[in-house]
Amino acid sequence: MTAFSFTIHNTDGNARRGLVSTAHGTFETPCFMATATAATVKAMTTDQVRATGAELAICNTYHLMLRPTPERVAALGGLHKFMNWPGPIVTDSGGFQVMSLAGLCKLTEEGATFQSHVDGSKHELTPERSMEIQSLLDSDITMALDECTPHPATHEVAAESMRRSMRWAERCREAFQKREGYALFGIAQGSTYEDLRLESVQKLAEIGVDGFGIGGLAVGEGQDEMFRVLDFTLPAVPTDKPRYLMGVGTPSDIVGAVLRGIDMFDCVMPTRAGRTGRGYTHRGQINIKNARHTADPRPLDERCTCPTCANYSRAYLHHLFRCEEILGPMLLTQHNEAYYQLLMKNLRDVIEQNTLQSFAAQFAQDQESGDIPPLA
Amino acid sequence: MTAFSFTIHNTDGNARRGLVSTAHGTFETPCFMATATAATVKAMTTDQVRATGAELAICNTYHLMLRPTPERVAALGGLHKFMNWPGPIVTDSGGFQVMSLAGLCKLTEEGATFQSHVDGSKHELTPERSMEIQSLLDSDITMALDECTPHPATHEVAAESMRRSMRWAERCREAFQKREGYALFGIAQGSTYEDLRLESVQKLAEIGVDGFGIGGLAVGEGQDEMFRVLDFTLPAVPTDKPRYLMGVGTPSDIVGAVLRGIDMFDCVMPTRAGRTGRGYTHRGQINIKNARHTADPRPLDERCTCPTCANYSRAYLHHLFRCEEILGPMLLTQHNEAYYQLLMKNLRDVIEQNTLQSFAAQFAQDQESGDIPPLA
Repeated sequence: MTAFSFTIHNTDGNARRGLVSTAHGTFETPCFMATATAATVKAMTTDQVRATGAELAICNTYHLMLRPTPERVAALGGLHKFMNWPGPIVTDSGGFQVMSLAGLCKLTEEGATFQSHVDGSKHELTPERSMEIQSLLDSDITMALDECTPHPATHEVAAESMRRSMRWAERCREAFQKREGYALFGIAQGSTYEDLRLESVQKLAEIGVDGFGIGGLAVGEGQDEMFRVLDFTLPAVPTDKPRYLMGVGTPSDIVGAVLRGIDMFDCVMPTRAGRTGRGYTHRGQINIKNARHTADPRPLDERCTCPTCANYSRAYLHHLFRCEEILGPMLLTQHNEAYYQLLMKNLRDVIEQNTLQSFAAQFAQDQESGDIPPLA
Repeated sequence: MTAFSFTIHNTDGNARRGLVSTAHGTFETPCFMATATAATVKAMTTDQVRATGAELAICNTYHLMLRPTPERVAALGGLHKFMNWPGPIVTDSGGFQVMSLAGLCKLTEEGATFQSHVDGSKHELTPERSMEIQSLLDSDITMALDECTPHPATHEVAAESMRRSMRWAERCREAFQKREGYALFGIAQGSTYEDLRLESVQKLAEIGVDGFGIGGLAVGEGQDEMFRVLDFTLPAVPTDKPRYLMGVGTPSDIVGAVLRGIDMFDCVMPTRAGRTGRGYTHRGQINIKNARHTADPRPLDERCTCPTCANYSRAYLHHLFRCEEILGPMLLTQHNEAYYQLLMKNLRDVIEQNTLQSFAAQFAQDQESGDIPPLA
């Protein structure tokens, strides 16, 4: 069993290229996690996920505590076996979903009580129970239970919310069962207030976490504001621990956050977009259901080498979505996931080559160039 | 370019093991086609389809004439390229779907007029147009346009319907564009009447078809009656041409029909069952949504080596269907298709070994033994 570790191999400005080791293998950073909320990356087999280059998957405590329950997953050998993903797994703590998805959610100092969005049954999630659940699930990286402070929030509300999250983080640290190769990440909150963000990061460093989640962003504040928060927060985060910007984001969000020193990302965008007909290209997003693709023999993105782009035309993908065939979401999700993974590989490569700045400039220019012109 | 050919390598009683050569490669018989109605095997990539052992796919003239239209498929390089299936393709003539799916269908001597089930637009399908469409689609095996006589039918209705189908088959033969490696199959009708079935087969032999479809069965007459029709029909069919029992059927239907000398099958059952939670096992069909599978760590079928059974528990599949995750239909369809393909491989093997009778007896016994008992 290897110890949990984070090694930085290269830096380029504030950006870092590194390697994280866990009980279930390693993953390179900066990385984008495959979103496997309910123990499945929607519309993809795990073989297909691995083929995109993804090394790390993220599952969700809230969804799995309701169905099939952590006790059942444990009895079936843990998440890795259950979902056929032998590689590293992160589990989100459930805090965000309890507050956004569940019914009648009440927060107290003790924790959260809520009703299942599935069947209305009542549940409680405390820092201690969140640690227990994530241990039963056997995730390599456990996230501390926190409150994702809604946006906008007054300084007073944001301070109160953040400080409770920090008290919960302390209880998580106490309750977290230390095992070789397993890690506990804290989550910094504090809305868009510099003093609160710095206080939160300082508190997590005192508690002694194995990595720093940056939470409460991408909740409506906009990209400029998000980058401003990262600009004043990240210099305070210890450089020797991985930094995970939770729930982010668009390709452009990711490039900007990597420039600022973020190592890990997760977001439902590529899979959700894939199910609804939206595909990522190096020239921005397209909607494959649009009539302009009806007869187009070209691949979704001519620069992409994924199986979807290697084997299928836009016309075929358009046909599948028009006929509501399941293969449409399958192929488009596969492409979008590959697009994100290729972006991360490119980012790691240019950090190694110290050319991240020029890559980022070209990337932004390409993204704004609009879709390829129609064939004559 | 190879000529279209059918070679019988072994026989066992009335059953035959053989090889069909087409412009796009060969397939072994007895075979079960992968159902790719709208140019996609629902919930499977073509790589996954090939991995099950399927060598032949079947698409549908009716669906493809409406969307994306045969002219568009031709402009995009034909069906093989369009759907990324380089192997042999059969296209059904559209007759069955025009009469079962479309609105306001009218049959005349000339052909069928009908309204699209998608948008209500009016269309006409004649024997000549069906040949043109299937040529544009570039299918290796073209099916003659016929009327699938409803069941039950009086002798008079069945005779009239069958004779019109035979006149259409003659027009199909005239209109069919001969190309090296491409074949035209006729379709024998005649309901459950021996004299009509024999007349139909005799007529098709005179017309000179490259293979014999047996149509108008599995339409509610029951397995015993279907086998009775095959028993009096097949001895009249020339032995040197492939015989295709259209739209059939259950695993038990297939074993019984192979025993009687059928070479080719197609049916939506394995894919449709896969999307609705029903899985095939050597001990019969199970419903994975049933609560008894909730905590079961065993694979769907312990005898199966498909990726679903190799990597996932019944409990996981149950979880996916309970959460309405797309991966559920994906994995179960993959298994069901693999189950059918393994059955066909076993049938080919036992014909070669002259042990089909004992295989069929054991198969029937296994199928009736019921699902594996729950774990203690």
